[in-house]
Amino acid sequence: MAIVVTKFGGTSVGNPERIQNVARRLIALREGGDSIVAVVSAMGDVTDDLLTLAAQISPHPPEREMDMLLATGEQVTIALLAMSIHALGHEAISFTGPQVGIVTDEGHTKAKITEVRAEKVKASLSEGKIVIVAGFQGVTPDGQITTLGRGGSDTTAIAIAAGIDADLCEIYTDVDGVFTADPRIVPDARKIDVISYEEMLEIAATGARVLQLRAVEFARNHGVVIHCRSSFHQGQGTIVREGDDSMEQAIISGVTHDTSEAKVTIRDVPDTPGVAARVFNRLAEANVNVDMIIQNVSEDGRTDISFTVPAEDLTRARQTTAEVAHELSAREWTVDESVAKVSLVGAGMKTHPGVAAQMFTALADADVNLHMISTSSIRISCVISREQTETAVRALHDSFGLANEAVKVEVSPGSTGGDC
Amino acid sequence: MAIVVTKFGGTSVGNPERIQNVARRLIALREGGDSIVAVVSAMGDVTDDLLTLAAQISPHPPEREMDMLLATGEQVTIALLAMSIHALGHEAISFTGPQVGIVTDEGHTKAKITEVRAEKVKASLSEGKIVIVAGFQGVTPDGQITTLGRGGSDTTAIAIAAGIDADLCEIYTDVDGVFTADPRIVPDARKIDVISYEEMLEIAATGARVLQLRAVEFARNHGVVIHCRSSFHQGQGTIVREGDDSMEQAIISGVTHDTSEAKVTIRDVPDTPGVAARVFNRLAEANVNVDMIIQNVSEDGRTDISFTVPAEDLTRARQTTAEVAHELSAREWTVDESVAKVSLVGAGMKTHPGVAAQMFTALADADVNLHMISTSSIRISCVISREQTETAVRALHDSFGLANEAVKVEVSPGSTGGDC
Repeated sequence: MAIVVTKFGGTSVGNPERIQNVARRLIALREGGDSIVAVVSAMGDVTDDLLTLAAQISPHPPEREMDMLLATGEQVTIALLAMSIHALGHEAISFTGPQVGIVTDEGHTKAKITEVRAEKVKASLSEGKIVIVAGFQGVTPDGQITTLGRGGSDTTAIAIAAGIDADLCEIYTDVDGVFTADPRIVPDARKIDVISYEEMLEIAATGARVLQLRAVEFARNHGVVIHCRSSFHQGQGTIVREGDDSMEQAIISGVTHDTSEAKVTIRDVPDTPGVAARVFNRLAEANVNVDMIIQNVSEDGRTDISFTVPAEDLTRARQTTAEVAHELSAREWTVDESVAKVSLVGAGMKTHPGVAAQMFTALADADVNLHMISTSSIRISCVISREQTETAVRALHDSFGLANEAVKVEVSPGSTGGDC
Repeated sequence: MAIVVTKFGGTSVGNPERIQNVARRLIALREGGDSIVAVVSAMGDVTDDLLTLAAQISPHPPEREMDMLLATGEQVTIALLAMSIHALGHEAISFTGPQVGIVTDEGHTKAKITEVRAEKVKASLSEGKIVIVAGFQGVTPDGQITTLGRGGSDTTAIAIAAGIDADLCEIYTDVDGVFTADPRIVPDARKIDVISYEEMLEIAATGARVLQLRAVEFARNHGVVIHCRSSFHQGQGTIVREGDDSMEQAIISGVTHDTSEAKVTIRDVPDTPGVAARVFNRLAEANVNVDMIIQNVSEDGRTDISFTVPAEDLTRARQTTAEVAHELSAREWTVDESVAKVSLVGAGMKTHPGVAAQMFTALADADVNLHMISTSSIRISCVISREQTETAVRALHDSFGLANEAVKVEVSPGSTGGDC
């Protein structure tokens, strides 16, 4: 008898009929003999509707009150799902994040989980009940309601799985699993059956929306095995777990892309110690999430610094960059919003030289020019022009033969423990 | 500097614009130097929308989950109201019922408040903040979310007023105050300036919807002074407080009516000890709220028992009555759903004989036949045919001259301490 935490997103619980489908699915799991926890998001557009209401009231609502407002969305879903399970003759009990002991810091609208007090979940499971938990929300030690920000419900599910020592955390989504590339761009993209945390982290970090980065990080840190699968059918999805020698790994797992970033360049600044520190400290203070950073080699004691930022942080990035560029007597600074990032991810590339060369060749053959390059031990990312995104993703997917069962390498123990 | 608890119902906070109006009103009060708590209901139709959602899921949802669902309604309002006050440049903080320490028993969907832990409200008031509290909801000692049932938000406001020792509890409604009769029926009905708890209890119990009975009871038990007033303008409403010798009281305060009850009669049962006890114990077990009870004098050791019940309890009442009538070998039992109750309320009637006689005469002159009569020391109620309701109310209002400043009596100390 396994303990399974499941998570259903907003689309899966978007109306009463879909909630009833989820209820039936949970009951089937329960009747299979497993202990079941379900973490759910707000129904479909509910969160957007609440945001619209808030916007009608205030352009900059206090974040504490925003959390108070948004937390109602998941609370509605848990009540309806518990009712639905009862109506089908089974026992269920719902809990809000605060009730179930998801303790967070005080970072309203993007709180971090600091503790999971899982006694109530355990007690209800031992009574044979299906336990329904509101995702995305928690409570500070002094009783303030918080929300976890983007990907919060995935994180709730994994935190609870860790807290109750679950055997598996199933994340139900509207896709079939993790693919070698976005199937909307690459029709012959292949579903990945098993992937290591490290690769999944790189895939999540470089643009794939299927699992949120922080949820995967939490899973890796607590050793929670994730099964990312479709809520529309019963087929196997993608298992995310610790890489070990039982796991055969492809040299390259997948190609990802991200068209939501902009590139900022500060030209001709002094190449002296502390300059980069100054730029990026100031950006951090302004709460700008910097992704890739490139500093070119110095010429005559002057250099250029480029970096990419999410589009949502660009307004703050512009303001800070203007100030810093002025202070550093930079010649100029520019913003390019028409860029994209394509990345190649694979634990196997660590032991296979020449992957970067093959990547750059494939892109050159497809006439794709590279603006920036950045690498980790299991990832290579290139910034290119946005209108070439699809061309680049297809070229890489073809070049590395990802549509086929790709060339595999035996992963030796510990080799997936990368630097990410 | 006074401490004032205010309460705004669902209509007053029905959309963002109205919420902003409430925010401005609270800010004006705060700027007047008072410490302000605002208790609010769910916006307009939100509770009905949630009930509809639940009905789509289950015909008989568990009450615990119903409370989980319904409690979200007020939580949305408190967040939006706090945001609105912030947007206008003032400090506010919102609390759910559980957060603010409204502790209740475990009677889901109709929980009773057992304790108010008011430290958080007091602390926030002492920081100068306007405190916004979700009405209608509380929490059991072990952390379950409860709702208080009908009139719950009024009760929350009065409970908090008692808990923080407020000087006044202002209940804002869509009417101007408490009237000598329903102004829709009696155009020259007069607003009552001051009324005792006891009279207000009788008025609330006999059909006036302006304040809920249990809220008035709570106010009386804790000595909370209520000001029931309009949310649409600044005029004085009706003050409800302990009757004392400074309060001039009319012989008759008002005429009320209630068309939401049905009359049940069990005919020809043995007039032996324990028969009435048996009937009404069984009804109580079936959770039927019996209002008036009449047992006629015995003839040949047999008698008739009549009682009135709210329409919403009628299905349960029919079932129980059928069983009991059979057990008692009653000749028959009947239900009359076309009845109404008209009542005359006034603390002054205790010391003025002849009020009942004048009431019956006025009704007889208007050709209104009486089905049942019941009295307390400050109220006389008659059950009549429903289609004669308006005729009866107008006849009584006229007969006792309630449109004018009625004949008044000096209330001697303690004389309002009735039996209600």
